[in-house]
Amino acid sequence: MPFVISPMQCAIITIGDEILIGKTIDTNSAWLGRKLNDLGFDIRQIHSISDKPKEIVRALDESLEKTDLVVLTGGLGPTNDDLTKKTLLEYFGGELLLDQEILDRLEGYFKGRKIPMLEVHRQQAFQPSSSKKLINNFGSASGMWFEKDNKVIISLPGVPYETKGIMREYGFDALTAHFELPTIYHRTILTWGKGESIIAQKIEKWEEEANASGLKIAYLPSVGLVKIRISGIGDDEGIKIRVDKKAEELYQIIPRYIFGENGDSLELITGKILREKGLTVATAESCTGGYLAHKFTSVSGSSDYFKGSLIAYANDVKEKVLGVSIKDIEKYGVVSEEVVKQMAENVRMLMNSDYGIATSGIAGPDGGSDEIPVGTIWIAIASKSSVNAKLLRLGTRRINNIMTTSIICLGSLLQEMQK
Amino acid sequence: MPFVISPMQCAIITIGDEILIGKTIDTNSAWLGRKLNDLGFDIRQIHSISDKPKEIVRALDESLEKTDLVVLTGGLGPTNDDLTKKTLLEYFGGELLLDQEILDRLEGYFKGRKIPMLEVHRQQAFQPSSSKKLINNFGSASGMWFEKDNKVIISLPGVPYETKGIMREYGFDALTAHFELPTIYHRTILTWGKGESIIAQKIEKWEEEANASGLKIAYLPSVGLVKIRISGIGDDEGIKIRVDKKAEELYQIIPRYIFGENGDSLELITGKILREKGLTVATAESCTGGYLAHKFTSVSGSSDYFKGSLIAYANDVKEKVLGVSIKDIEKYGVVSEEVVKQMAENVRMLMNSDYGIATSGIAGPDGGSDEIPVGTIWIAIASKSSVNAKLLRLGTRRINNIMTTSIICLGSLLQEMQK
Repeated sequence: MPFVISPMQCAIITIGDEILIGKTIDTNSAWLGRKLNDLGFDIRQIHSISDKPKEIVRALDESLEKTDLVVLTGGLGPTNDDLTKKTLLEYFGGELLLDQEILDRLEGYFKGRKIPMLEVHRQQAFQPSSSKKLINNFGSASGMWFEKDNKVIISLPGVPYETKGIMREYGFDALTAHFELPTIYHRTILTWGKGESIIAQKIEKWEEEANASGLKIAYLPSVGLVKIRISGIGDDEGIKIRVDKKAEELYQIIPRYIFGENGDSLELITGKILREKGLTVATAESCTGGYLAHKFTSVSGSSDYFKGSLIAYANDVKEKVLGVSIKDIEKYGVVSEEVVKQMAENVRMLMNSDYGIATSGIAGPDGGSDEIPVGTIWIAIASKSSVNAKLLRLGTRRINNIMTTSIICLGSLLQEMQK
Repeated sequence: MPFVISPMQCAIITIGDEILIGKTIDTNSAWLGRKLNDLGFDIRQIHSISDKPKEIVRALDESLEKTDLVVLTGGLGPTNDDLTKKTLLEYFGGELLLDQEILDRLEGYFKGRKIPMLEVHRQQAFQPSSSKKLINNFGSASGMWFEKDNKVIISLPGVPYETKGIMREYGFDALTAHFELPTIYHRTILTWGKGESIIAQKIEKWEEEANASGLKIAYLPSVGLVKIRISGIGDDEGIKIRVDKKAEELYQIIPRYIFGENGDSLELITGKILREKGLTVATAESCTGGYLAHKFTSVSGSSDYFKGSLIAYANDVKEKVLGVSIKDIEKYGVVSEEVVKQMAENVRMLMNSDYGIATSGIAGPDGGSDEIPVGTIWIAIASKSSVNAKLLRLGTRRINNIMTTSIICLGSLLQEMQK
């Protein structure tokens, strides 16, 4: 029988006009929502409001009425627009006291960056006596922790890496210590190569069984990937065993599509295996225009296995630098199995790598024809012993096509190495 | 004297658990906030709530109390989770009627995509009699327009390109016709090459004068760019003249940094000028790893002027393919003025282009030394007559360094062409 528990309720409040008028996209709330949900909180609502005391008080009142935890982000900067601290001081009472530890830290922070410390910055060392501080090792505004009627209110700066840094270093631990949270256990299995509907069809029975046993299955979208999250909630360690068992089953059902778990990325995993095997790769890109190389090189240390790429947009570059036969380009067309295979083989030779990957297609939205519509893309992988090509039929959105093709190239290389 | 007007109030409500638990980042609200603000609405709050009738009704009640316009997105899909339409029907009264025009459109939509049309899809052709439809040419769920006590409630599907499509084609016009909105006029001037604080310093006096005359100046952040928005609100056409005059002044004060306006991007403008002048470009990238080529090729039609790129990550590729002197690499180091200049010149020759751009540096976070710390990046631009190099000293975040360097390369090429 599934264990039923009433989870702690949570509200997130984002403060600042820049969110309301769309100057900034609120990524903090999504991150906090995911992390707090993972901890066992039920996220009731996310509120974005103006940096005005009246609005902040109204949102706090309303949120505290129905939740156990309220997390506010934003409005803690040194400028006059940022009224959150003043408003919270009035709301929770107490007075502003100088915190010597924060002051020392601030002075060190400005000294290290060789930026003059102004009086407005010094003000940031003052904390409401009604709050506990949450130290910010990533910026100048500290977080604050208030309690009221057994409820917790956390106020954090709005800069995403500061928000995350404070929560990771202090916030989540403090929440786990304060609240009696259920044991929650997640595993997120990452797949590539098939769309959500096809994956869902393949694991339909598995999913039904998971639901029937009280586990939750969620599909998380991402360009070119499908992430499957298995979650369990319970009162003991048994939940971990049940989730792990379900995950192992998934590895049996769709082994070809799984490349990693949780925070992994395809470029990270592919790179890791290249390094482990002592192999190198080079790419010859037409329609992906450098994005595939960018994926490889977005990983720190990728120079260990990524030798380089030739972005051959112009046909004379394909011919002259990459040595693709101009006759074949004329005979088969530049978007063809023959040409993409030559590109993959030639770049492997040119850059003296173990693998060569090539792409050639119509990324769109312009440039298609009846014969070769937008979204027609050939990819090829050459190794020392063989060269294989694959035809993709994607959509009409340029950036989407570029990204999806790059993901499929990374996954195909991974598959090739696992053969 | 500035004209004072009380703007129409607006609330945005996003429906769906995927936003609350952070599976999806809410980009719709930011877009709607910006666009509605541009139209003259004052965005009071953005609310993200669960897909539950009680929550939807509560958020609607609360929003209608203090605003003139409520825009809901999400919760209109064909699955059972999506209860928004039912809830709105109960809230505003009426009954569900089959809309033949929507049905015909749906049948065409599924036929065109060769996807079977199911009963759940047919249900999407039923509309509340209390609403006017907002036709969706981008997906299967129509938008709805309700009125109550002279207030307007718009319900839209949550898929961003559907939300945007409906509003652009029908929504904004209908709002402009329904509400008496003030004349609002914006111009957003785009700059590159200097950070926000330096730009702000250069235009301090201009900004003070703008504020004093009742215009609003806002800085919109973006990696490597600073966007300056001038807004005016008024009752007549005079506002356009005042904003335009202020924009012209800006062109006089910081001519070197301005590259475009409004929706322009640096890659679009640079590409446009290359095409106009009949010139071509090629890149040789080390630390940017293909991202610069990706920026160029993210523009449809870029094959007219972008010939290709050599991503030379490994030194033997720099030597063998690009012809950089291995002696110079040993003598000066790979991150040096000498090497980056050779890279730019050689790729220009190799790909037979008018310009060659090269990058070489330590993107980080690993790989730095005391002598050459992370963030040390050389760029060079070679033309037929000269080659110029520039040293950048950036931060420690890899992706940020890659993006900022690429932006500076694009801007430097633009500047070179404008000489």
